[in-house]
Amino acid sequence: MAGSVPETTTPASDYGDAYPASRRVFADSGRVRVPLREIALSGGEPPLRVYDTSGPRGADVRTGLPPLRREWIAGRGDVSAVTPAAVRNGDGPLPDGLRRPVVRGRGAVSQMHYARRGEVTPEMEFVAVREGLDPEFVRSEVARGRAIIPANVNHPELEPMAIGRYFLVKINANIGNSAVSSSIEEEVDKLRWATLWGADTVMDLSTGPDIHTTREWILRNSPVPVGTVPIYQALEKVGGRPEELTWEVYRDTLIEQAEQGVDYFTVHAGVLLRYVALTARRVTGIVSRGGSIHAKWCLAHHQENFAYTHFREICEIMQAYDVSFSLGDGLRPGSIADANDEAQFAELKTQGELTRIAWEHDVQVMNEGPGHVPMHLIRDNMEKQLEWCEEAPFYTLGPLTTDIAPGYDHITSAIGAAMIGWYGTAMLCYVTPKEHLGLPNREDVKAGVIAYKIAAHAADLAKGHPRAQAWDDALSKARFEFRWEDQFNLALDPVTARAYHDETLPADGAKVAHFCSMCGPKFCSMEITQQLRDFAAQRGLSTGQAAAAGMQEKSDEFRRRPELYVPAK
Amino acid sequence: MAGSVPETTTPASDYGDAYPASRRVFADSGRVRVPLREIALSGGEPPLRVYDTSGPRGADVRTGLPPLRREWIAGRGDVSAVTPAAVRNGDGPLPDGLRRPVVRGRGAVSQMHYARRGEVTPEMEFVAVREGLDPEFVRSEVARGRAIIPANVNHPELEPMAIGRYFLVKINANIGNSAVSSSIEEEVDKLRWATLWGADTVMDLSTGPDIHTTREWILRNSPVPVGTVPIYQALEKVGGRPEELTWEVYRDTLIEQAEQGVDYFTVHAGVLLRYVALTARRVTGIVSRGGSIHAKWCLAHHQENFAYTHFREICEIMQAYDVSFSLGDGLRPGSIADANDEAQFAELKTQGELTRIAWEHDVQVMNEGPGHVPMHLIRDNMEKQLEWCEEAPFYTLGPLTTDIAPGYDHITSAIGAAMIGWYGTAMLCYVTPKEHLGLPNREDVKAGVIAYKIAAHAADLAKGHPRAQAWDDALSKARFEFRWEDQFNLALDPVTARAYHDETLPADGAKVAHFCSMCGPKFCSMEITQQLRDFAAQRGLSTGQAAAAGMQEKSDEFRRRPELYVPAK
Repeated sequence: MAGSVPETTTPASDYGDAYPASRRVFADSGRVRVPLREIALSGGEPPLRVYDTSGPRGADVRTGLPPLRREWIAGRGDVSAVTPAAVRNGDGPLPDGLRRPVVRGRGAVSQMHYARRGEVTPEMEFVAVREGLDPEFVRSEVARGRAIIPANVNHPELEPMAIGRYFLVKINANIGNSAVSSSIEEEVDKLRWATLWGADTVMDLSTGPDIHTTREWILRNSPVPVGTVPIYQALEKVGGRPEELTWEVYRDTLIEQAEQGVDYFTVHAGVLLRYVALTARRVTGIVSRGGSIHAKWCLAHHQENFAYTHFREICEIMQAYDVSFSLGDGLRPGSIADANDEAQFAELKTQGELTRIAWEHDVQVMNEGPGHVPMHLIRDNMEKQLEWCEEAPFYTLGPLTTDIAPGYDHITSAIGAAMIGWYGTAMLCYVTPKEHLGLPNREDVKAGVIAYKIAAHAADLAKGHPRAQAWDDALSKARFEFRWEDQFNLALDPVTARAYHDETLPADGAKVAHFCSMCGPKFCSMEITQQLRDFAAQRGLSTGQAAAAGMQEKSDEFRRRPELYVPAK
Repeated sequence: MAGSVPETTTPASDYGDAYPASRRVFADSGRVRVPLREIALSGGEPPLRVYDTSGPRGADVRTGLPPLRREWIAGRGDVSAVTPAAVRNGDGPLPDGLRRPVVRGRGAVSQMHYARRGEVTPEMEFVAVREGLDPEFVRSEVARGRAIIPANVNHPELEPMAIGRYFLVKINANIGNSAVSSSIEEEVDKLRWATLWGADTVMDLSTGPDIHTTREWILRNSPVPVGTVPIYQALEKVGGRPEELTWEVYRDTLIEQAEQGVDYFTVHAGVLLRYVALTARRVTGIVSRGGSIHAKWCLAHHQENFAYTHFREICEIMQAYDVSFSLGDGLRPGSIADANDEAQFAELKTQGELTRIAWEHDVQVMNEGPGHVPMHLIRDNMEKQLEWCEEAPFYTLGPLTTDIAPGYDHITSAIGAAMIGWYGTAMLCYVTPKEHLGLPNREDVKAGVIAYKIAAHAADLAKGHPRAQAWDDALSKARFEFRWEDQFNLALDPVTARAYHDETLPADGAKVAHFCSMCGPKFCSMEITQQLRDFAAQRGLSTGQAAAAGMQEKSDEFRRRPELYVPAK
């Protein structure tokens, strides 16, 4: 299957299937048109608009998405056409429709670069409209390094988004084939599927053959930023033997992927030789693939990590395409026992050092974080990252709050993810039920994305994001007013909500009933509350407020004798 | 189906099916024999013993479980035989095997009563052995009211357990048929199923016909405490019309259920007339069934809640059977918008007042808590409860941290449950994926229990419970050493973990492979870490510690020049 051409056109209908009462609408600022999902409601309620990551649907995957940003990039006049590495090295089996001109900046072309010059780019304005923020605020956050807008100049299909502490909490879904299983078709399908359910970025973690071609398919069809771990492909190039890696192979891989349009690179430059020793007594050693590859190279050569020693050269490559750093946490803890240990925090401190160097080059940066951390140790991670990395966005994997539930690690980690999101983490890397066990299939990807949408939204509520609670309120109001269809349609997963309802009360009449299967008609507390309000209304008190006033008299009476009635014995 | 006699014998094999490498073993203190689940491991690892709630398996449900506590109760010499209400009122279709003698204390026969007298009962010792604690500590916590051991003298089948802040966090599973759906057979099966997966107590929330008979079947087959909300049955007795409820009907219902052996009652005595007005402006009003029934009665009669005015009489009933209070939170918030409002906290303060009165009668008490609460408002609930209710155990429903995910509320609430468990909540009432939508089936019950076992264990880790982390460490060690079978068997749900693994790599050989499907053999970070250790070992360094020392020299060398290498331009 590897390398074969997907036959499918991405179905436009999947959007309608997933969100039966929603449509993709646009907020037009004059300069940018920003997609939103509008959920139609009944009972005279206004429709609710929510953030939308699904991208244009119905495109032929052999043609890719429309290049939304092409004019913006060209209009800045600071990039030149280059002959891509893929052409130089002999191309893979790629349809003509997916070929794009490749460009490279003549200097720094990063959003941070423009932001620092005081320019509000179309990308920044897009983000501002998307999140209901002031464009100047977006610019200042990017300039400060507290937010990033991952947006490679070679990924014009991207709908810009921001990752930062003062923005909505974002989630990432990992996809990518491995040496053991899965195909290009499956990976493109997972990309479309993950963004349909709400993934804000995807990481292509492919490790099998045809890494380059798989990635090209994914990028040309991705409306969200795509991240990679370039060391995986570099390792393929040296036959899978870490000790044979060289700086040159790694550098060429960075350029090859930057030319394709990858928006952020995980770079494990913080795995220093002297830190490797700190992992020797751990319960689970080094659990990051990238971290262990670099560690093995360091030990085999008795030399410092080449990603560290060549870090400034890496910055020079990334600034020319606007690839953002995702500074890897190669020594993250893989178990509760190893959480917050010396190895982990030594690397985090080095991530801070590297963040400052990247910023010298106008390269956007986020920092990756753990991993497996019990609840009481989570906050310390966030506080150290904020301090040592100067508020660069934190991007964490979970963390998982216990090790004892393989098969349910989307839940063990959603707990930690929600908490660390509340504390200030900007993006949460999802974990699927297959974590530690196998490769996620379609259902696992959906389960992971939904669990993380929950965690991110719970964090947005706790952080007091001004737009967050409107969604909860709309759903709860629908629930209280027995607008069942609205309750389903406002759910993160409308079809599942409806199916669960229909298992017990399948009749259509039940969906307008003023009770549900949990209590039955006589016991329905919400119905009784309605009756309470009616009761008050009958006494000439028409609204909730009037009802409150009407009951006040009785209330006052009891307030005058609050002591307990003691029955005669 | 209602009222028919279940034909099934509970399968002994379900334990083995759920936990293939486990067996039920006993820790014998001489005075008590306490069940534990022992998980066999390979590779010379000692077996791991974990808390076990599954109860004796293989019993005929028409005979019920052996009356473990009968001798202990009789031995105290403070109860007398009574003719039960069921016999007085005409009995339901109950097999002879389920009939038990009914007793009543001649005074207070509560665990709190004995604890305050300085007695370590067999129940307290059972709890101590079960949790690895000192029996005198258990006694002092029960005497202080900071822990309860729900243990009705008419529920001798019970394996005693404690609910308290300094004990393992417990979870409750709700079962019970409703007017709309389900049968006795299903409910007994759900009881057995819920305790198999780890439910520490169950609440029988039946609202349909045959409430009495259903409860009898459940109690006689339950190795865990059973809670109820007696107002549900009282309401059935008056034709479902709350305004026709009377104190006498309610009182008789309490006695009837106490005679059956119910271990704790949810009593909504804190729903005061003057508080009802406070809910009028809420988004979701009153969402507690019990709360709304009492509220409606109060308004209809313009009188104070009879459960409040007769509270001391209720205490006198409950002390005679050792039924514990679960003081209901009838005004808990049903949406994020209503969290931590005046109505909720007014009731909580009254719960504190009632707690002190119950303690005057030696009646054990816990307090019920919310509900729907965003993360940043959770801690305030715990702190107020500890202060106002003087550290009586808190028993919360979730809380759900967002309203937008019906169909996934086991996850929205596991987040809040884990957090409030860490903060000090003693028992977490589970939420299933069907919450707000329908009645949970078998799979939903399991999903709810597993999500809550995760939340409770995550809380135990964060609280630093001395026995908690051994389980995580055993699993992580197995993972790191590629003992796949051990990893599965140590999982909360071994069969699901194994099935997920086998989806990608079904061959038996894969279960001894030193890699897995996520990365493949060349990329496995754990394998690379092993190689790192081997590498060190080849240089004469045999263990992790020695490896660390061996790498120290290189580490020191780099430590002397920590600055970044700057390449020549």
